[in-house]
Amino acid sequence: MASFDLLILNGLVVTASDIGHYDIAIKDEKIALLAPKGSLAETQAKKVIDAEGGYVMPGGVDAHVHLEEPPLFGKGRSSDTYETGTRSAICGGTTTVITFAPQSKNDPSLLSVLESTHQKAQNNCYTDYSFHILLSNPSPSVLNEFPTLRQKGISSLKIYMTYEALQLRDNEILDVLLTARQNSITTMIHAENGDILSWMTNKLEEKGLFEPKYHATSRPQLVETEATNRAITLSELIDTPMLIVHVSSPSAAEHIRNAQTRGLPLYAETCPQYLFLTRSHLSLPSFHGAKHICSPPPRTSADHPQIWLSLRNHTFTILSSDHCPFHYFDTENGKSSVRTPEYPLGRFKYIPNGIPGIETRLPLVLSAMEKDSKKLSLTKFVEVTSTNPAKLYGLYPRKGALLPGISDADLVIWYPPNTLEEWPIRNEDLHHNVDYTPYEGMMVCQWPRWTVLRGKVVWEREGEGLVGEKGWGRFVERGESTLGGRRGVGEWDVEAF
Amino acid sequence: MASFDLLILNGLVVTASDIGHYDIAIKDEKIALLAPKGSLAETQAKKVIDAEGGYVMPGGVDAHVHLEEPPLFGKGRSSDTYETGTRSAICGGTTTVITFAPQSKNDPSLLSVLESTHQKAQNNCYTDYSFHILLSNPSPSVLNEFPTLRQKGISSLKIYMTYEALQLRDNEILDVLLTARQNSITTMIHAENGDILSWMTNKLEEKGLFEPKYHATSRPQLVETEATNRAITLSELIDTPMLIVHVSSPSAAEHIRNAQTRGLPLYAETCPQYLFLTRSHLSLPSFHGAKHICSPPPRTSADHPQIWLSLRNHTFTILSSDHCPFHYFDTENGKSSVRTPEYPLGRFKYIPNGIPGIETRLPLVLSAMEKDSKKLSLTKFVEVTSTNPAKLYGLYPRKGALLPGISDADLVIWYPPNTLEEWPIRNEDLHHNVDYTPYEGMMVCQWPRWTVLRGKVVWEREGEGLVGEKGWGRFVERGESTLGGRRGVGEWDVEAF
Amino acid sequence: MASFDLLILNGLVVTASDIGHYDIAIKDEKIALLAPKGSLAETQAKKVIDAEGGYVMPGGVDAHVHLEEPPLFGKGRSSDTYETGTRSAICGGTTTVITFAPQSKNDPSLLSVLESTHQKAQNNCYTDYSFHILLSNPSPSVLNEFPTLRQKGISSLKIYMTYEALQLRDNEILDVLLTARQNSITTMIHAENGDILSWMTNKLEEKGLFEPKYHATSRPQLVETEATNRAITLSELIDTPMLIVHVSSPSAAEHIRNAQTRGLPLYAETCPQYLFLTRSHLSLPSFHGAKHICSPPPRTSADHPQIWLSLRNHTFTILSSDHCPFHYFDTENGKSSVRTPEYPLGRFKYIPNGIPGIETRLPLVLSAMEKDSKKLSLTKFVEVTSTNPAKLYGLYPRKGALLPGISDADLVIWYPPNTLEEWPIRNEDLHHNVDYTPYEGMMVCQWPRWTVLRGKVVWEREGEGLVGEKGWGRFVERGESTLGGRRGVGEWDVEAF
Amino acid sequence: MASFDLLILNGLVVTASDIGHYDIAIKDEKIALLAPKGSLAETQAKKVIDAEGGYVMPGGVDAHVHLEEPPLFGKGRSSDTYETGTRSAICGGTTTVITFAPQSKNDPSLLSVLESTHQKAQNNCYTDYSFHILLSNPSPSVLNEFPTLRQKGISSLKIYMTYEALQLRDNEILDVLLTARQNSITTMIHAENGDILSWMTNKLEEKGLFEPKYHATSRPQLVETEATNRAITLSELIDTPMLIVHVSSPSAAEHIRNAQTRGLPLYAETCPQYLFLTRSHLSLPSFHGAKHICSPPPRTSADHPQIWLSLRNHTFTILSSDHCPFHYFDTENGKSSVRTPEYPLGRFKYIPNGIPGIETRLPLVLSAMEKDSKKLSLTKFVEVTSTNPAKLYGLYPRKGALLPGISDADLVIWYPPNTLEEWPIRNEDLHHNVDYTPYEGMMVCQWPRWTVLRGKVVWEREGEGLVGEKGWGRFVERGESTLGGRRGVGEWDVEAF
Repeated sequence: MASFDLLILNGLVVTASDIGHYDIAIKDEKIALLAPKGSLAETQAKKVIDAEGGYVMPGGVDAHVHLEEPPLFGKGRSSDTYETGTRSAICGGTTTVITFAPQSKNDPSLLSVLESTHQKAQNNCYTDYSFHILLSNPSPSVLNEFPTLRQKGISSLKIYMTYEALQLRDNEILDVLLTARQNSITTMIHAENGDILSWMTNKLEEKGLFEPKYHATSRPQLVETEATNRAITLSELIDTPMLIVHVSSPSAAEHIRNAQTRGLPLYAETCPQYLFLTRSHLSLPSFHGAKHICSPPPRTSADHPQIWLSLRNHTFTILSSDHCPFHYFDTENGKSSVRTPEYPLGRFKYIPNGIPGIETRLPLVLSAMEKDSKKLSLTKFVEVTSTNPAKLYGLYPRKGALLPGISDADLVIWYPPNTLEEWPIRNEDLHHNVDYTPYEGMMVCQWPRWTVLRGKVVWEREGEGLVGEKGWGRFVERGESTLGGRRGVGEWDVEAF
Repeated sequence: MASFDLLILNGLVVTASDIGHYDIAIKDEKIALLAPKGSLAETQAKKVIDAEGGYVMPGGVDAHVHLEEPPLFGKGRSSDTYETGTRSAICGGTTTVITFAPQSKNDPSLLSVLESTHQKAQNNCYTDYSFHILLSNPSPSVLNEFPTLRQKGISSLKIYMTYEALQLRDNEILDVLLTARQNSITTMIHAENGDILSWMTNKLEEKGLFEPKYHATSRPQLVETEATNRAITLSELIDTPMLIVHVSSPSAAEHIRNAQTRGLPLYAETCPQYLFLTRSHLSLPSFHGAKHICSPPPRTSADHPQIWLSLRNHTFTILSSDHCPFHYFDTENGKSSVRTPEYPLGRFKYIPNGIPGIETRLPLVLSAMEKDSKKLSLTKFVEVTSTNPAKLYGLYPRKGALLPGISDADLVIWYPPNTLEEWPIRNEDLHHNVDYTPYEGMMVCQWPRWTVLRGKVVWEREGEGLVGEKGWGRFVERGESTLGGRRGVGEWDVEAF
Repeated sequence: MASFDLLILNGLVVTASDIGHYDIAIKDEKIALLAPKGSLAETQAKKVIDAEGGYVMPGGVDAHVHLEEPPLFGKGRSSDTYETGTRSAICGGTTTVITFAPQSKNDPSLLSVLESTHQKAQNNCYTDYSFHILLSNPSPSVLNEFPTLRQKGISSLKIYMTYEALQLRDNEILDVLLTARQNSITTMIHAENGDILSWMTNKLEEKGLFEPKYHATSRPQLVETEATNRAITLSELIDTPMLIVHVSSPSAAEHIRNAQTRGLPLYAETCPQYLFLTRSHLSLPSFHGAKHICSPPPRTSADHPQIWLSLRNHTFTILSSDHCPFHYFDTENGKSSVRTPEYPLGRFKYIPNGIPGIETRLPLVLSAMEKDSKKLSLTKFVEVTSTNPAKLYGLYPRKGALLPGISDADLVIWYPPNTLEEWPIRNEDLHHNVDYTPYEGMMVCQWPRWTVLRGKVVWEREGEGLVGEKGWGRFVERGESTLGGRRGVGEWDVEAF
Repeated sequence: MASFDLLILNGLVVTASDIGHYDIAIKDEKIALLAPKGSLAETQAKKVIDAEGGYVMPGGVDAHVHLEEPPLFGKGRSSDTYETGTRSAICGGTTTVITFAPQSKNDPSLLSVLESTHQKAQNNCYTDYSFHILLSNPSPSVLNEFPTLRQKGISSLKIYMTYEALQLRDNEILDVLLTARQNSITTMIHAENGDILSWMTNKLEEKGLFEPKYHATSRPQLVETEATNRAITLSELIDTPMLIVHVSSPSAAEHIRNAQTRGLPLYAETCPQYLFLTRSHLSLPSFHGAKHICSPPPRTSADHPQIWLSLRNHTFTILSSDHCPFHYFDTENGKSSVRTPEYPLGRFKYIPNGIPGIETRLPLVLSAMEKDSKKLSLTKFVEVTSTNPAKLYGLYPRKGALLPGISDADLVIWYPPNTLEEWPIRNEDLHHNVDYTPYEGMMVCQWPRWTVLRGKVVWEREGEGLVGEKGWGRFVERGESTLGGRRGVGEWDVEAF
């Protein structure tokens, strides 16, 4: 039998369903063989990794990443480029990212948006990548471009129920959903009620409450819960799959679960910030609370167990980073840009919304699981961080799995369980282009030992660290979701109502 | 003891809680005495009515009546004036109506709207009356008028989540609710999602579906259900009482009940059209379906039992007519005005929304109860048609009760149970100014035998019929609701979130 | 007009629906006239009470009272006789009690049980009274007595899902329910899962945990919640009305509310102990926790708001005392009888279950309402403590209302609101035959100023105190419930399933 | 590289998570290699199967099978022995069965029960096999045997809430659950309320209703729903995993889903009879309805969609056959044994409960999926019929997966999708020892083409048919469940309540 490019021996291989000790051979960027432990030991191979009993998993797929975006919301500018963002990803075990190709209200065509995003990413990425369309202007001509998008390998888009620059009204959302249905495109939706939160914001400003912590006050759970219910209604009307992004509230999760109980093709995402951060982080002294401002805001520690549970019991489909990085000390484009002599603590409504997290996503969660195995099973971890995002967004089985001859040889290899002493996360150890991490000081006990992208080792923690090359990451064309889709068949029928 | 103006003897007196055979004496427009049956028989009195065992109830309070409104929605014109509308009411056992003082988006002041509505009503009414403000433009100056409204005896207002000319965005609704809270004003809300239904309407028109029946298609239950959930959210945020008007959908009722289960001050109204009409009425041949167009549209007969049940189990607080009359054959201002050579069956989106029902409200429901006593108890009937509207809108205990020396002597006296043979409702027997009734041909077995307003007999079915005089009806100043109000105390606190 | 026996002037009269200032005349034991305030002032009357603006309410009806029962559960003996128990009632504003005629498993006939209970009560009562059958042996011959019970004015019975001496299996419960349905008898049920709690009790004893506080441990909420769901299932199968007695758990209340949402004829009772006591009372030093042992046990203060809410939103139908008195220091028949040298703190499973509360029921609740008016409205207070028990158990409209010529002149007259300074409840001020009250030291600010039974003043707080006479209380024959009954008609049909 | 025993080429391999075209090599009874399609084509192997694009799946695991049981319920006798039952299994694609080692109330020891069941199975099986303990007498000495059971490779047991001969009371169930928890044993429970259904049965007999169809009448959904809720309560109290067997009712599924929403370790099973049969099958002419009598009874076709949905949305964990075979025409031990001259249509209460289905389980479901792909995904099919039963009952990863060097080479190979014309199921084509199938005439379009057990082809549909040998099937020792277990840690703590 032919020789291989790489062997991964002695790993505890974990996929979305299975776990066992066996060996993996890689050739020509693909998984080549799965074989009994020990059986490949003497096979000819260019390189051999001895996993020493550590977990071997399909490389992470991070399906919610903001890179090199223009300041669409009138605030800040992403501090990470495609280069720095994907560099950070690869060092945290993520081998594929899906970022956004953002349309502004003035962009008359998604195709040019897509094209210019391609130009930013091309030859700059350490990970494989694709794009979601971020759609803010659903004009008829824009909707007509959906078939072309599909031909260009784009099968998902994202819309917003908030942010003045992006917010769509319900009728506009229906236009998008119907066209998405007709083109088998999966719709992602940011579900916060923009009208309520802008009203809350105004009330807070009227009362002179400008500090970072009032960001959380302005966006109570019901802002998210209401919008989630409305989004579900719209999805049900059109009968088309929808993913609710970054769910932070147990009450929103309850609406989602009820929709799933009724059999709707409803999917949901959560993020590490809703498992590890709380709104009290927004009350840190001075202006430091701004480092934790994202939307929805972190909730309370009393909400965390329900978010973990919603991962366990299948309510949440995927776990993404929502990496949306801004420098803290950058007074031009970063969080601090809103501090003025008049407002020394800024005005929360102008603070760029978003936090970095692409590199810490997998280690944070896996470390928490190692400390308390009841939080999540290993197979569920792979499912929500790799396999399900791949399936939902049409990357599967090329990504998110270890199928011989089919799946790209993307792997993340961890340490054997319970072998490392825990240590604090420090921003200086991370590889993004951000001057802080909101998880500074949180303890972890796992980290990717090796990351492999299409058969090539790109990260070796104990060796040279980052060994991948910029540009090894490629654009991946995506097809239709392989998770359950609409329930009805044929043309959507308005007469059904 | 002093002599009386009127005695009601031998009645089976029913109030919201109690039922029993006793006699009633009236003097100076008020209830004067409640006394054992037979004990007043020989008392000196100007007039005596022998109820012969028939029900004696507090006069009906119809809290949802549209009269003499300008064509705010760009469609049709109310065919009933204050004179004809209240005439019809009195013949159907209703002694107090609350109509609307409608603000158009251009009206800069509610006070002038109120004034002009007063002018229409004054000296023209057969019933006592008050007004809800119909608010479409919540500008700061308008909101500033709320304290003055309260001084002028107005303690309720209505807003809309649909109809282009009236629809408020969620932030505008919050402005209204907060000011309503500060002034102890009860907010009524028309909960249908205007964005969804206008989208549905456009889709139907695109497909060439113009007939009356598509009105129901354009407003599926989820249009109402979504808006109901959103309205509840807004009410919860501000912590202020709200009434959802004309609830037609079991799924909307479920949201309301859940809110009540959680203890929110949430109230709801339904109407006879949701107990007796179905969407199949909209499919009547030719253009006749237009006679049944109202919003929300009638649902299916499978939904009716749940609406009855929601009355029984306290989910619905009041039962009103939503009397909103348009002529059918009137080709200028009526339903038929939308028929053109090009669209011989009209375009449903232009058909005036609304049906008459002020006179049939009580007889229809009481007749159905007499045929099936499990539908509603007699005390519940009085509660939802008289006592609760009086309590909710600040008319109590002057209206909706029989308290000696306190309550106005407003009474409706029915036939003894099971004594009449049933007969069909015919429009020619009604007293409104509309050329049809949507209930034509439906069988009833009860009708008010006498109606008494402030001690004066104004309707005697077996005598001269209408014996009241135009102008005997007076404006009633209203105070704060005596049903449960907001849960918190003091100023609404944005920091609670 | 004839002269009267008693006038109640200047009261704020409250019934289950209405509230207003008017005057009341009484004659021949009945309500004779309701008249405008001031209008009866000069009427000839034997006695006049000036209520001075205090509340005037229909006398309390306490539908859950244990008096002079044999030690059925193998523990303790009621310390109150019919004399002392009804004496205590009258001093607390309760004018009618329904006690239990308890059948032991060995009693072959309910009629003899009824007869012997009559003998205990006759000529001994300060209040009017009736009996529920407490049924423990549903043999065919016992079930055949139901028609005779109805003839003798008994229209309700109580069964148990716990206590070895009383517990019925589900099939036995179905036998009872079907016969109850056929005879229009209302079934009360003690819903705790006896098999679970006896298992819990054994486990606790195995671990050497005998103290009073483990009584609460042995009966967690789910013991009640499970049994409540099962009782509802049985009631639904037979389609017959059922009242769940002494509901203490929010999770049980949720099942009840869901049943009501579905339209089942399901009723529920709660008691002051679930509004004012907590399980921490069972942890009082020494053996004093035993004073608070009742079943279900008091829950936590976190549960109280939900119990209040369930009263407000109609989930609970009535509020009774479950007065079940045992002396504390009585070492033969009281709580202390279980203390032995071997078990100085007793064994919780042998401590008599039950606490006194017949006299404090109304003052405790009304005082709490006066301190926080959002807890309950005055009309709701009358509804759940007087009118609804009268309706549910077939005493209405003779009891629970103020209908002229119909209702007995049973009244409780309170102090004008906010006029008394609050003071602590002290057992020495109470009139039961128990050496403690579990509410010792709790602050109240209201107490009945006068109690009137069938036109006769029987309690005057500021005068001689108890002025009623033993034996003035009479047995009241009861008819069918006037609250909603079974949903189907005719014979129960096994083929419906 | 070493040569192989068997190659499976050109298959579309489906596991619980993954699907793709790749090849499989087998050696020494184990999965030896997973390799790219085409890569093994020329490898040396003793035998090669060309799957031609057909599905290749882990062999079916049927975890609910009754074979060679004594007539525990006083009715009938299993017609299938271990030989005939496992023969039928292997022809339907099932390679592992878990049957029952049934304890009668008189059996003082589970170990002897286990031993005698071993004797029946040993050397007689065509499939691999293990046993659940069927526990009917939870005496202390029996409970003390649990550790020994675990040593003998038994990690699950089943108990009953119905059937006089088996029914446990709630306290007995708690004894079992606590001991099961202490020994990491998974408890299965038959959730029907035995007291209710015996009462219903008696009522039906009293009315002279004896026909087979009244079996369904005697066991309405609420009998199952109530018991399901109670079982969940008991499981929650002890905090130990539980599987509800053969769930047939949407309302029971709702309780289960709610428990999972709360995070309880609750699992559920359904069976083909609840997807394909209806209660109208029990009304077939003459006595033929008896062929469809099982417990719970089949429900209506209106319930089927919800059962499918509950499989899709993760509510149901496994899909088993509940194969429980009785001859129809056998007048001594079969269904017909209850027909007498006096009762020519038998008495439903004596008809043996159970139907055969071990061979049709997989083909019926997969055929339905091929006709309507929205019913279930292929991966979900493998999950519920093979992987999850293996995980839940401690067979994983030896069974239910395809892990190289780890999993037994158990495979079922189907036809390529949409290649066969559908044909009717006929009992004469099946391999059980039963004279009928309840699915007679139902159309299927898939059937196992080959079945492979531990590397050996045991069924080849197009060749000689059954080619396995009796006795190739072996007993499999089972360990702890690898699905989520109890939530708390350490000893169960009674003080938590």
